[in-house]
Amino acid sequence: MRWIYAFDAADGLGRDLLGGKGFALAEMTRLGLPVPPGFTVTTEACRAYLAGQGLPEGLWAEIEAAVARLETQTQKRFGGTEGPPLLLSVRSGAPVSMPGMMDTILNLGLTLDGVAALARATGNPRFAWDSYRRFIQMYGEVALGVDAAHFDRLIEAKKAQAGVERDIDLAPEDLEELAYAFKERIREEGKTFPEDPWEQLKGAVEAVFKSWNNPRAKTYRRLYQIPDDLGTAVNVQAMVFGNLGEDSGTGVGFTRNPSTGEKGLYGEYLRNAQGEDVVAGIRTPEPLERLRIYAPDVYAELEKVAAILERHFGDMQDFEFTVERGRLYLLQTRSGKRTPEAAVRIAVEMAEEGLIAKEEAVDRVDANTLPQLLQARVDYARAPKPHLKGLPASPGAAVGHAVLTAEAAEAWSREGKPVILVRPETTPEDVGGMHAAKGILTARGGMTSHAAVVARGMGVPAVVGASGLVLDVEAGTFRLGDLELKEGDPITIDGTTGAVYAGAVPLVQGQGSQHLDRLLSWAEPFRKLGVRANADTPEDARKARELGAEGIGLVRTEHMFFAEDRLPWVRRLILARTPEEEAQALERLAAFQKTDFKGLLEAMDGLPVTVRLLDPPLHEFLPDRVALERKEAAGALEPHEAELLERVRVLEEANPMLGFRGIRLLLVRPEILKMQLTALLEATRELKAEGRDPRPEVMLPLVSGPEEVRAARALIDPLLEAYGLDVPIGTMIETPRAALLAGEIAREVEFFSFGTNDLTQLTYGISRDDAGAFAPAYLEARWWAFDPTAELDAAGVAELLRIAIERGRAANPALKLGICGEHGGEARSVRLAAELGLDYVSASPYRVLTARLAAAQAARRRERPVSV
Amino acid sequence: MRWIYAFDAADGLGRDLLGGKGFALAEMTRLGLPVPPGFTVTTEACRAYLAGQGLPEGLWAEIEAAVARLETQTQKRFGGTEGPPLLLSVRSGAPVSMPGMMDTILNLGLTLDGVAALARATGNPRFAWDSYRRFIQMYGEVALGVDAAHFDRLIEAKKAQAGVERDIDLAPEDLEELAYAFKERIREEGKTFPEDPWEQLKGAVEAVFKSWNNPRAKTYRRLYQIPDDLGTAVNVQAMVFGNLGEDSGTGVGFTRNPSTGEKGLYGEYLRNAQGEDVVAGIRTPEPLERLRIYAPDVYAELEKVAAILERHFGDMQDFEFTVERGRLYLLQTRSGKRTPEAAVRIAVEMAEEGLIAKEEAVDRVDANTLPQLLQARVDYARAPKPHLKGLPASPGAAVGHAVLTAEAAEAWSREGKPVILVRPETTPEDVGGMHAAKGILTARGGMTSHAAVVARGMGVPAVVGASGLVLDVEAGTFRLGDLELKEGDPITIDGTTGAVYAGAVPLVQGQGSQHLDRLLSWAEPFRKLGVRANADTPEDARKARELGAEGIGLVRTEHMFFAEDRLPWVRRLILARTPEEEAQALERLAAFQKTDFKGLLEAMDGLPVTVRLLDPPLHEFLPDRVALERKEAAGALEPHEAELLERVRVLEEANPMLGFRGIRLLLVRPEILKMQLTALLEATRELKAEGRDPRPEVMLPLVSGPEEVRAARALIDPLLEAYGLDVPIGTMIETPRAALLAGEIAREVEFFSFGTNDLTQLTYGISRDDAGAFAPAYLEARWWAFDPTAELDAAGVAELLRIAIERGRAANPALKLGICGEHGGEARSVRLAAELGLDYVSASPYRVLTARLAAAQAARRRERPVSV
Repeated sequence: MRWIYAFDAADGLGRDLLGGKGFALAEMTRLGLPVPPGFTVTTEACRAYLAGQGLPEGLWAEIEAAVARLETQTQKRFGGTEGPPLLLSVRSGAPVSMPGMMDTILNLGLTLDGVAALARATGNPRFAWDSYRRFIQMYGEVALGVDAAHFDRLIEAKKAQAGVERDIDLAPEDLEELAYAFKERIREEGKTFPEDPWEQLKGAVEAVFKSWNNPRAKTYRRLYQIPDDLGTAVNVQAMVFGNLGEDSGTGVGFTRNPSTGEKGLYGEYLRNAQGEDVVAGIRTPEPLERLRIYAPDVYAELEKVAAILERHFGDMQDFEFTVERGRLYLLQTRSGKRTPEAAVRIAVEMAEEGLIAKEEAVDRVDANTLPQLLQARVDYARAPKPHLKGLPASPGAAVGHAVLTAEAAEAWSREGKPVILVRPETTPEDVGGMHAAKGILTARGGMTSHAAVVARGMGVPAVVGASGLVLDVEAGTFRLGDLELKEGDPITIDGTTGAVYAGAVPLVQGQGSQHLDRLLSWAEPFRKLGVRANADTPEDARKARELGAEGIGLVRTEHMFFAEDRLPWVRRLILARTPEEEAQALERLAAFQKTDFKGLLEAMDGLPVTVRLLDPPLHEFLPDRVALERKEAAGALEPHEAELLERVRVLEEANPMLGFRGIRLLLVRPEILKMQLTALLEATRELKAEGRDPRPEVMLPLVSGPEEVRAARALIDPLLEAYGLDVPIGTMIETPRAALLAGEIAREVEFFSFGTNDLTQLTYGISRDDAGAFAPAYLEARWWAFDPTAELDAAGVAELLRIAIERGRAANPALKLGICGEHGGEARSVRLAAELGLDYVSASPYRVLTARLAAAQAARRRERPVSV
Repeated sequence: MRWIYAFDAADGLGRDLLGGKGFALAEMTRLGLPVPPGFTVTTEACRAYLAGQGLPEGLWAEIEAAVARLETQTQKRFGGTEGPPLLLSVRSGAPVSMPGMMDTILNLGLTLDGVAALARATGNPRFAWDSYRRFIQMYGEVALGVDAAHFDRLIEAKKAQAGVERDIDLAPEDLEELAYAFKERIREEGKTFPEDPWEQLKGAVEAVFKSWNNPRAKTYRRLYQIPDDLGTAVNVQAMVFGNLGEDSGTGVGFTRNPSTGEKGLYGEYLRNAQGEDVVAGIRTPEPLERLRIYAPDVYAELEKVAAILERHFGDMQDFEFTVERGRLYLLQTRSGKRTPEAAVRIAVEMAEEGLIAKEEAVDRVDANTLPQLLQARVDYARAPKPHLKGLPASPGAAVGHAVLTAEAAEAWSREGKPVILVRPETTPEDVGGMHAAKGILTARGGMTSHAAVVARGMGVPAVVGASGLVLDVEAGTFRLGDLELKEGDPITIDGTTGAVYAGAVPLVQGQGSQHLDRLLSWAEPFRKLGVRANADTPEDARKARELGAEGIGLVRTEHMFFAEDRLPWVRRLILARTPEEEAQALERLAAFQKTDFKGLLEAMDGLPVTVRLLDPPLHEFLPDRVALERKEAAGALEPHEAELLERVRVLEEANPMLGFRGIRLLLVRPEILKMQLTALLEATRELKAEGRDPRPEVMLPLVSGPEEVRAARALIDPLLEAYGLDVPIGTMIETPRAALLAGEIAREVEFFSFGTNDLTQLTYGISRDDAGAFAPAYLEARWWAFDPTAELDAAGVAELLRIAIERGRAANPALKLGICGEHGGEARSVRLAAELGLDYVSASPYRVLTARLAAAQAARRRERPVSV
């Protein structure tokens, strides 16, 4: 045999030749599991078919021989009319799972004579005619390309005529009439339904081959860069029937619970049904457990099968089976999808059971999902369909009263009411309200918009860029799609999936687990990359430390400036008209900052705390211009606001992200730098006096050249000397120019921290706050293969990292290198960071778990470089 | 001799050893010109002094011997009291001109006894005492570091006491008393004025050496990267006196007119005066011409000297001289500063006179200044002091009535009144008004802000970022610094210098010149780099072609959208609610665009015209949000504006530069791309039918990856095929990622055009519209050695160009490469472009001249790479 392999003769052949489904069927057959006999037409045959004209030479003869063998094995005749005929299922099966391909044709081989024989043999004419009309319907749809709606309409008409509600209540005669009506319809569509079983088989095999090149499949392959010459296999298998009576049935099983990971059979079973009935959702399946009562032997056999499958495939399996008159048949198996929680538990328990190695368990879990294990989430089993979908910006779910302003969020929250802050987008002004809220929902912005970044930092669930959300803040109303709601109405957001619900939806609270702890304890020894946290408050720092952070990689000092008691002083600093006013404001701010820094250094005692000096432009600390302008135009501006408005107008920037901020601001207004640095040094000195071990580091933002760093050091070094403290000084590398000039910059500093948020924005020329307008279309069309604000771009941005690392280390071999952008908490990016040879990543507190696991995984796969 | 060289014994020694001044004096001596004898203490001596303690061994003995030789040469004794004593001038002279160094001490060697001897010998006690008090004053100030104000106060007091107004009216006794008062003051300052001539000399030489390390000199060296170990020379020279009577005098001469370039002596002369009198501006010098009457022989000699100097130094010279009792002495010479006009004429005429080679003439002229030759400029001789200084954003000067809105600019201009548009900053909405204005003045923005770029493109003079400009648009008033003006008041702006004047200041019109034409005709054969123009209108295109442009490198199609008759249709497109409304708007716009493109292609018949598809975000075509919000808040919003406001709110972006624009917009709204491309292809087809030779090229903006280009080509290529036209397709390379991924992108296109404006902004992380807030401080402190928005950054941005060029050419050897950012019209950037091996640069029309000359210069200096 060359073009086809029987399931029991495919030993040692791989997935590429047999396709995923064929491979699994062959493996199960080899394991001695009860698989209906069949054979796989190889992907090679498909390739030959697509390359030439018609079926490749010899294929048909091989198929005829294989079918003959099936006849022997089943003791039935293909197209036979004496005794039950041999019926076949024909299914596609590419080496990689791929939508758009022709799927399944069941009951192939039935003819009018065969129906009669089948009715006789089973004593069940309803079954026979139902099998026939199903076959015609499937063949018509998938092999002949007739619109499914035609068949549905005919069924509806027939049910109306018969006065019944359910398909199952149609009489054999109805089904017979339907079969004829289906064929008539097919003819009207200009297609021919082949009456000859061999013609049927040939048509089905060719249809599968041809479906490789249907537009949807081609698009999918283009988007996901699946080679066009892979081809699909075709699996031809003897039919078994779950719809032969109450001792028959069909089901889907998992070897472990895919929601919880708990060991043991889990799944659904439908008595007296064919597989498609389960999929169609016409009848509600029962829990698989029930099979223990209906057919204890079968259930016991399934348990054994599950154990065998797991031992063989080394993973939790999702399998399909049919029980035909009390006899079990396995039709498919594959690794089962699972929740993050289940993934951890399964990996850990399978390792403990000796089914896989512990290292393998470490590799198995998607590190990106770990934060979800600690956070509340929607109880999907009990949740309705969401009203809107936005971007899943900060994981976890929250229920609360919708409030439309940050002030309202703070006010309601003071009264003890849980609130969800709903905004068009958030600004630094909203930070107080965001802190007060249980969750955040915005109409605009992308995965690294202000709302997303701040929410992740706070560990507050958030959905951003929910484009069906429209607010009328003044009227106190908002719309979720077509649904009109008002301020105070309860809503639920799911930051893990991006779902938004009107009303309160049941949540379940994530607790972490012993399994998670165990997994991380196995992972830890592999990890070479350091993991720090981005944290702005002592609470965040403590949380992060608990979760395994080895220091703080990024303190955003400006976040401290937005607190209610500080903002007025920041504004006084901005509005100061005399050096005295300025000095007074700075003095107050210094006192606040010292307290902040002490708290952070104390929480991270003995571990490094990297303080980034003031980063945003000053106007971020002033109120929104539009609101003030409107007040003024309406004659409602209060006297103290006039001054603010004037200043807001002067400081406003066309592109604040590229504006007067970071090192630019610190150099032009060095008093701010000195205030922050002094506060940090004072805090350090006091803690040392108390016997603590504070380890501050100072980081300069938005550097674009070595001159800036030299100028900053000229301000910093005398202060360090005055305090007699040895504090490492570093720069963010977040402009492309800083990366390119890293050699010169490295000579001036002790460390680099790659600010991959800004670096990504500048390398692409995108704004995290505005990308929402086109990013969904870009991802959909695969103009972006991934969202670069969420995942570090290996081709462009990472190349700048490579350049900077090479030049930086060459100029200063002692240079420490880290990432403190949001990417530091994303698994693929963490692996890339490890590949690049960084010393550490820094992630928001919950994402420390992701970073730790991903770093361990990266160390394990060091020999396999990340593809670019 | 080791440490010093007499002027007549320094043959063949260079500027590094002798300093600039010493070198010129030695050269002049060698040429046989009348230079008072003297010697130069070398920079080596300075270095030795600064390295060790005190004067280097042997120096003093050499100085003593050299002074003895001066005594012989002058027949005077140093410190002599019989006959006039030998007096010396001591001047510093580093190899490079450098502020902050100790400058000049005259009359050194005078003692009380010497004064008496001098008075006797000259018969002029006033001269003797005046020389003495001047010496004490200068020595006190520059060698002893006594504050000059002390001496000035004493002089003022003495004049008041004597009842005279001018120094020159003080009697010898007054001057004698002043000399004693000066010495007393020096003592009170804790310093000692040395009475011994040798002590004086030693003190002066050491003071020069020490001044090498004074803070101002050190800062200057650090900022301009002048090596600290260069050291300065000291020139010691026998004094001659221009203040010995009416047959004496002092002057400054130019060998050619530094304003016009006209050949012939030009300068100023002051009878009976010492050099410092000219500098101090106490008396007004006469034109040098007058010397022809006062002393025809001396004038004739000066003419000969000028010819000798020019022949020797090969450049127009600026020299200092003194006439002592009818005898000419030359004290210094150096290349003279000149206006751009003079620079061209001098270079051309010197070449024609055979003084320099034509190639040398080509090298001599600063290409950046050429556009000024064609534009009006302020008649500096007749202009008052400016009221404000901003950034010189677009060269040329203009006088007009100040108007504060674009609407007013258009309205006034329709009435035939010249206007200057004065705005806080400009937006695309203002383009109509900018076109109507004679000049543009903004309070904010940098060299590549909207106002600057558009003004340069239009050739309209502009001053931007004038930070003392404050507008109250509603009140119709504005302030230039302290001066309050109102709309309609005449003002003058000078876009060449950045000066802003209240009132109408006289202008002179630039005409180009035959000299310029000749210079360019010599330059042209060297040039290898192509030069195109950035032009959006047929008029600009014709102008550019006249000035030598070989095509259009950038048509900004959006600029066509802002015209009064198109904007409403652009807005309809944005506001369209149905496909029909959208199609109707597109159809109208297509008709406009076709006309636009035909005009451009016709003006550039036979030459390439690179059309960039729509670049800005759509909201740029909508009115300003704040104005609409204010109207709404005041209840004054008109019905049709409500819709606009709603749209403005939705489309508003936090960072429009990084927003939904360029290829992003074109891919997500492909109907716009198709409309533009169809219009271009229609225009091309029609012109071809008329027998013309249209050569369109199409360019995609803001690309950041190859997928985008592939997607765009999938839209473009079928249209090209449908029209049967072969149009080169290219991308802007203006995001760092596009530069890094240039290899992949190059496979999809025929050309790259580096958009160095955006690329610079993204590489640095700066916004051209906002950089004004910190750029002046950055340039002042030399945190920026140059303004990267004006000059291409060789270290960072150009490295991305290098990467892109290398990868692009490797992937597609036929790839054409150009620059179409503003840098394409800046001389150093053009040279860098040539070094990088680009095929062409594209510049705004007037800057085509700069590009042509700079490209020729670059080709000449190919062996000398641009320093990085």
